[in-house]
Amino acid sequence: MRYSQLFGRTSKESKQYDSKNATLLTKAGFIDQTMAGVYKYLPLGLRVLTKIENIVRTHMDEIGQELLMTALAPKELWEKTGRLGIDVLMETRGANDASRKQNDASYILNPTHEDNITPLVAQFVQSYRELPVALYQIQNKFRNEARPKSGLLRGREFRMKDLYSFHVSKDDLMSYYEVAKQAYVRTFEALGIGDKTVIALASGGDFTENFSHEFQTFCEAGEDLLFYDEKTEVYYNREVTPSQAPAVSYPDNEMKERAEVLGEGIIGVLELAEFLQIPVEQTTKTMLFVADEQPVAVAVRGGYEVDEGKLKKVLGTRTLRMATDAEVEAIGSKVGYVGILDLPEHVRVIIDESCDNRLNFECGANRENYHTVNVNWGRDIQKPEQFYDIKVAQEGDINPATKKPYPVHKAAEVGNIFPLETKFSDAFGFTYTDESGASQKVYMGSYGIGTTRLVGVIAEVCNDERGLVWPKQIAPFQVHLVTISKGEDEAYKVSENIYGELSEQGIEVLWDDRIDVRAGEQFADADLIGNPVRIVVSQKTLEQKSVELKLRSSEDTEMVALEDLVDQIKTLI
Amino acid sequence: MRYSQLFGRTSKESKQYDSKNATLLTKAGFIDQTMAGVYKYLPLGLRVLTKIENIVRTHMDEIGQELLMTALAPKELWEKTGRLGIDVLMETRGANDASRKQNDASYILNPTHEDNITPLVAQFVQSYRELPVALYQIQNKFRNEARPKSGLLRGREFRMKDLYSFHVSKDDLMSYYEVAKQAYVRTFEALGIGDKTVIALASGGDFTENFSHEFQTFCEAGEDLLFYDEKTEVYYNREVTPSQAPAVSYPDNEMKERAEVLGEGIIGVLELAEFLQIPVEQTTKTMLFVADEQPVAVAVRGGYEVDEGKLKKVLGTRTLRMATDAEVEAIGSKVGYVGILDLPEHVRVIIDESCDNRLNFECGANRENYHTVNVNWGRDIQKPEQFYDIKVAQEGDINPATKKPYPVHKAAEVGNIFPLETKFSDAFGFTYTDESGASQKVYMGSYGIGTTRLVGVIAEVCNDERGLVWPKQIAPFQVHLVTISKGEDEAYKVSENIYGELSEQGIEVLWDDRIDVRAGEQFADADLIGNPVRIVVSQKTLEQKSVELKLRSSEDTEMVALEDLVDQIKTLI
Repeated sequence: MRYSQLFGRTSKESKQYDSKNATLLTKAGFIDQTMAGVYKYLPLGLRVLTKIENIVRTHMDEIGQELLMTALAPKELWEKTGRLGIDVLMETRGANDASRKQNDASYILNPTHEDNITPLVAQFVQSYRELPVALYQIQNKFRNEARPKSGLLRGREFRMKDLYSFHVSKDDLMSYYEVAKQAYVRTFEALGIGDKTVIALASGGDFTENFSHEFQTFCEAGEDLLFYDEKTEVYYNREVTPSQAPAVSYPDNEMKERAEVLGEGIIGVLELAEFLQIPVEQTTKTMLFVADEQPVAVAVRGGYEVDEGKLKKVLGTRTLRMATDAEVEAIGSKVGYVGILDLPEHVRVIIDESCDNRLNFECGANRENYHTVNVNWGRDIQKPEQFYDIKVAQEGDINPATKKPYPVHKAAEVGNIFPLETKFSDAFGFTYTDESGASQKVYMGSYGIGTTRLVGVIAEVCNDERGLVWPKQIAPFQVHLVTISKGEDEAYKVSENIYGELSEQGIEVLWDDRIDVRAGEQFADADLIGNPVRIVVSQKTLEQKSVELKLRSSEDTEMVALEDLVDQIKTLI
Repeated sequence: MRYSQLFGRTSKESKQYDSKNATLLTKAGFIDQTMAGVYKYLPLGLRVLTKIENIVRTHMDEIGQELLMTALAPKELWEKTGRLGIDVLMETRGANDASRKQNDASYILNPTHEDNITPLVAQFVQSYRELPVALYQIQNKFRNEARPKSGLLRGREFRMKDLYSFHVSKDDLMSYYEVAKQAYVRTFEALGIGDKTVIALASGGDFTENFSHEFQTFCEAGEDLLFYDEKTEVYYNREVTPSQAPAVSYPDNEMKERAEVLGEGIIGVLELAEFLQIPVEQTTKTMLFVADEQPVAVAVRGGYEVDEGKLKKVLGTRTLRMATDAEVEAIGSKVGYVGILDLPEHVRVIIDESCDNRLNFECGANRENYHTVNVNWGRDIQKPEQFYDIKVAQEGDINPATKKPYPVHKAAEVGNIFPLETKFSDAFGFTYTDESGASQKVYMGSYGIGTTRLVGVIAEVCNDERGLVWPKQIAPFQVHLVTISKGEDEAYKVSENIYGELSEQGIEVLWDDRIDVRAGEQFADADLIGNPVRIVVSQKTLEQKSVELKLRSSEDTEMVALEDLVDQIKTLI
């Protein structure tokens, strides 16, 4: 491709977008924002996306068959799985009266396809002989995100590879799950980010001891925080990290007099700590949940959040929700002022270990506008027989296994694999007949890779102060050929020959054939775009019958004789 | 691919879908209907779709650059082009309260992308030096069709290749337009339907003398009717066919007495003809339009429809719409009973040539429930100075150039090219600066090929009573290998070798390795699926150290020696 002909060239605008990836990719002419969370792929960007999707496809073809489902789905499918209330779900309908008169139905715009593929597979699979089945697609998805603000990392419209597998048993699911995990490892290696990508344990959902696994690429812009267990060499997603709060230190050990303090309308722990003139660690966040219709008061130290996944596991209940205002009042308390003191006996109390080992701490007074201060275990409230770990881990938390703070890493999720087990097959009554003729549950897994997100993540992690530095596997072009010339001179003609010869050899060349811009601008554009190999042809290099060759990832340049150029490039790409 | 492993095998169900293509493709395991007008592509179907899209892509790469726009668009874009009222437009929004609370905006789901690409190109193009630009994408589109009923030929969700070109002048547009037309011709040839596909003239829109061009594939299920002008060898879409109604013959030539007949509530011409006991050709359909705010009465012979495109050209007005009930009453008439008799002088009257040469015809009495019969030119109403051709052509119509009835062909549109000129660049104020520094209008063309529609059209035209007969360029597999075997016998082992060897040579083989079905069923499935070359390996063929080879498109079989097989197949694919 001649750069002078390319649509979507680099832009001198210094507009900053919501993220480094959007800013860099826009400036370099790879993408264009349609609106928040919705991006067009210009020719350069589409080349990268297509290469990523083809690498993903190659690896998925080894473990499944490709099909293509639809963006639209009838509402009944989402009704059956009880997921019509999901907060990112979008629907469609006619955009005007004339359109609605033609067809007044509304449809779901799928954010994921479990609800679609399960009944499809059920249609074709009746017997154990037809299992396992593994199917994938690469397709647009839609999510009504509140405030998408990470460029390509989180979009309202995005592309994903999603694979689903169906099995006769949990064992068969889990052995395929390992196969898929290894295919994922190979995929991220092939994409050139294997060294920056780790597998993190994440929640497997409510009623399984299984973890799901996230493939996380270390990345400052990432929305996730990973906790590394140095003992087992395992990364944890913050929701499942076994965590211990750092101890609070006290200058003296004296219990002070317990008191109720009026703090009108003060609810948040930070505001309260400031009002009471105590460290936030001395406050207590107590929340009332309802688990299987029984009230449960849950407390964590101020500064922490309750992790509902951990809490559900501790409770072992089927359902969990926040209590309503009326339910809070029914236990004699008031929303915003719930505390663990003097609760009715039928209220179960679950207290996080971060609340242990404190002196003179605060907790809600179960009375509007009042806070109890200088509460002490033993004196004011019986110390619970057991403290739990029900908090979302945060930076600084102690690894209970090493007794040292976790090393933490910011990361962006690029893939996940999930043992769904029978969640969706149950919803659709999808069973199979086993060898004995008995009806059995179908086990299912799902496996995602966000392909447009990968463009963004790789842009986030593969760049320097001058621009993008693409891994060679997915760079838009393999070679960036810069001609320094003011017209149809020798440098231009030699470049034309090099361009033709490399193209003939199947090497992808972006030829900066512009004769009306300064060399400095050409170099800056080459760096901004980030193709892996740069060749410069000028009158000066030709005096030595050579061209200059430089890798984008290195500062070194070397002169290469014209006759050696093709061979040398082949060793580099 | 081993057929025993393929997801989406042939189905013995005889369910009839809304069209031959949907029935055949579903039965053969290529597609699965999600709901009316929305189809999933199973592995076989996706292979065909991907091959079609790759062929289209190869040809479009010769004339433009690929990018990828978005399915979602902000409403403002469609507002700017005045197209928010289009009757197939769909919009999205949050599907539930939680989702709408996160983001309450609604977006357009694009049915086409002129409204999106024009502002994109305007962003990058300021000068004549940056033109022309030609960009295309292959992407999902959404249309809120009233009752999609032609399988893949008309969908609510479908895929299209759409290319848009931008030019400094109408001349430059039209010369690119010819280039695009030739690229389309080559594309349909490469897809294997060149011999069944013709270019038809269609309307170019309101204010141009230009035609647009449709690529139409002859097809019984097609929604279009083409009229062939034997003199100029041109095909016309029915809306632009110069047409002359066949003459009406009269046994005697006597004028009868004009009368007003009460026919309460009788409005349609067929019902009226039956009521009056006259041929439908003797009735007159008169409609009141408003063109540039002036009333126009328009009449065609019973049995014809008014073509608004032709009418607009005759009137030369900017706007045209049907009159409201009040406007009909304002000229002293009544909706359903409008006639051309005794209209106020300010009403312009346009009469189709089909109304000429009639005796004793009927027309509305401009009075509720009344019809005037035995109307005659000259006696009852002045014969107009000029009759026009303002009707939609229909089968049996005379070609004015040859004076003979047109040969007509049913066809399905597989592509179209359209000289949009400045319609969209005007809407977005997209201009460029010419060599003299003056601001000039940008000229634009659009060029579509429906890729999922092509799957359906090719299925409609490439089949026989036993199933699909794919052109070799787009067949899901090149070779269908049938092994007749009850287990791991010689036939099975030889087949395994053939499968391996052909696959290694890059030949795509679907190997029917099933050992638990009858040979008859295997042959029936091979015919239903329609891969171009069938090889049968059985104990019997191996006795001759041979296999049986048959083309799907032929009844002949031949025996091919095992050692010649690969070479022979290479000549066939």
